[in-house]
Amino acid sequence: MSSEKDDDISNDSDVIVNGSDSNSDNFKESKITPWEVQGEINYDKLIETFGTKPITSDILQKVQKLAGDVHPLLKLNYFFSHRDFDWILNKYERNENFYLYTGRGPSGMVHMGHLLPWLFTKYLQDKFNSKLLFQLTDDEKFLYNQDRTFQEIKSFTYENILDIIAIGFDANRTKIIVDTKHIQYLYPLANEIAKRITFSTSKSVFGFTHSTNIGMIGFPPIQSAPCFLPSLIEGKPTPVLIPAAIDQDPYWRMTRDVADRMGYYKPAQIHSKFLPALDTSGKMSSSKPQNAIFTTDDPETIDRKVSAAFTGGQPTVALQRELGGNALECPVYWYLRYFFDSEVQSEERLIKCEGGNLLCGECKSDLATESKSFMIKFKQRREKAKDMIQEFMYDGKPL
Amino acid sequence: MSSEKDDDISNDSDVIVNGSDSNSDNFKESKITPWEVQGEINYDKLIETFGTKPITSDILQKVQKLAGDVHPLLKLNYFFSHRDFDWILNKYERNENFYLYTGRGPSGMVHMGHLLPWLFTKYLQDKFNSKLLFQLTDDEKFLYNQDRTFQEIKSFTYENILDIIAIGFDANRTKIIVDTKHIQYLYPLANEIAKRITFSTSKSVFGFTHSTNIGMIGFPPIQSAPCFLPSLIEGKPTPVLIPAAIDQDPYWRMTRDVADRMGYYKPAQIHSKFLPALDTSGKMSSSKPQNAIFTTDDPETIDRKVSAAFTGGQPTVALQRELGGNALECPVYWYLRYFFDSEVQSEERLIKCEGGNLLCGECKSDLATESKSFMIKFKQRREKAKDMIQEFMYDGKPL
Repeated sequence: MSSEKDDDISNDSDVIVNGSDSNSDNFKESKITPWEVQGEINYDKLIETFGTKPITSDILQKVQKLAGDVHPLLKLNYFFSHRDFDWILNKYERNENFYLYTGRGPSGMVHMGHLLPWLFTKYLQDKFNSKLLFQLTDDEKFLYNQDRTFQEIKSFTYENILDIIAIGFDANRTKIIVDTKHIQYLYPLANEIAKRITFSTSKSVFGFTHSTNIGMIGFPPIQSAPCFLPSLIEGKPTPVLIPAAIDQDPYWRMTRDVADRMGYYKPAQIHSKFLPALDTSGKMSSSKPQNAIFTTDDPETIDRKVSAAFTGGQPTVALQRELGGNALECPVYWYLRYFFDSEVQSEERLIKCEGGNLLCGECKSDLATESKSFMIKFKQRREKAKDMIQEFMYDGKPL
Repeated sequence: MSSEKDDDISNDSDVIVNGSDSNSDNFKESKITPWEVQGEINYDKLIETFGTKPITSDILQKVQKLAGDVHPLLKLNYFFSHRDFDWILNKYERNENFYLYTGRGPSGMVHMGHLLPWLFTKYLQDKFNSKLLFQLTDDEKFLYNQDRTFQEIKSFTYENILDIIAIGFDANRTKIIVDTKHIQYLYPLANEIAKRITFSTSKSVFGFTHSTNIGMIGFPPIQSAPCFLPSLIEGKPTPVLIPAAIDQDPYWRMTRDVADRMGYYKPAQIHSKFLPALDTSGKMSSSKPQNAIFTTDDPETIDRKVSAAFTGGQPTVALQRELGGNALECPVYWYLRYFFDSEVQSEERLIKCEGGNLLCGECKSDLATESKSFMIKFKQRREKAKDMIQEFMYDGKPL
């Protein structure tokens, strides 16, 4: 069992993060909760504020040794932070398997920003031979959005399930939990968790107020429950690793705080950054559809969105040739790097761009071509997924 | 649909009831929540504070007309208050059937105080040919009692189910809902309800504080959900009448407040008083086992408890013969009246006691004899109930 003391939730008095760095007087405040990500995010600062740990070269070496290779998203520090990931790797090294658990709040269609952690989760499943629980918090999304009907959420849930299956998770070792569909499996555990958390604590962890509806206040234990479900399924304390974006961390802080008292391992996490929107206006988000590429976008839409994307390029071709582009602040560059370019290709692209030997149009053309090609295949898998839903649904039986 | 405006929950700022009457300066405060009943209760004052209505002679006449007779607990004003019971009767008169819904929090064994509302509910079912949902809030009782394990609550749930079935409800028209067992049927409705209730509201209705656990805060919609389940089962708005003790009223106030907005009828209620403890120290309660007669007590235990009961008698036989007893403040008298005496017998007992022609020992002997005889038969039905549990369990199908 983890002996880390770094996540005492009583210290997490606030989820507002001061995103400034020490060299500037211009403080820009960022806000990160499971329901809202605002402002410029300083990820190093987040590690400090949330009390997580950075991914170190020791960890990367351990992954290399155990998995045979290191996923680009780890190398690129897109997964940048963790709690007890080293503990999970040590367990695995001593032949103790771990479950993976991740999730999705079905409040809209799936875009590329969602796919990154899922692709990384598939890598972990493949390399570590892990069983995976994938939760869809349809209840949360219904409760959170005051004007959404449950029918709308249900329809997004169905569409999102197709995306999840299309990722290519192992059907024999993956089960999808839809909260309202599988609540009978979660509810007893959720009650055990809920009994141990006061309003006062959840107020400080999640920022709940007196005007929050009681469904939202009662919800967090439902998202915690799958952390302990593997122990029930396996009939023994079972380690769990959660790959997810950093905004979900408040749930795991709360969960870790009760784990000891319930006789379970604290769930380990590995936290990702957010994929920036195509216009760099923040994270890619379903609420800004023009700045996100969805798995259901047709080729023309992808062309249009990529064509309108911000870049790190200069205002004119002449200036670009003279000064070079700012690749490291260019969403097009990063999309290509995260999704499509090999390490070598990406390095070449960086050098050419910065040296003025690459125009933004060329990169956009590459991104549009790759994205369309990716989505054509993804959509085919998404179609096939329609016949595989039942196979993936959780049924309370061992995976 | 009811047009009553008497239950705007925003007016229910507090559940503390001043139980004093106007002739006394000695105020005794009483507290009534679904989890705590303290102090002397002034039932007339409760009607005013909770904004309910008294049971009138018009209502009794309507019941006589529709049911063919008036149950003693109604005549005796043990069921003393209501919301929309008149509306339910009018609906019935116009050939619109209503569901009954009542419940039990399985935090201990069942005593005679629990049986009264259930016997009354059976009368309603028999007379009005009603379908009945009977909810066991095992989740609530687990969440409320910090030191109770779920195994303990589960064991009480099983025992309580035997008592409920032993009451003799119609197996074809009665379904028992155990929250943790049937949560999948309640959860979608509960989310619809929860979304419409803020912490602020539930704080004022239930007295929740910052140290209340989030399970308790999230729970009330689970108890509300069966109010609307009949409309889903029947596929049309369906009236529901809840016979229950007055302490449960906060749940129904909250439920009525959201009913309109959800397109359902407001649930109607008929409220009972509390059966006093044998030592008149408050309501009969599982937490004071010596002052309560349980359905599982053996004859010797019943003899012992009744023998130790307080009465309205004088300190000596001589004084009793001279001054007469105070029957109307005697728990033994009321137990006999509520459970065993006919109207005629009870009137005779009153006259004899007040006239000094009856000693407490005689009444205690009558109560012990009747209680033992009742419990012997009840226990036989309780034994038979063990084979009928499955038949009574809710299964999501029409009753």
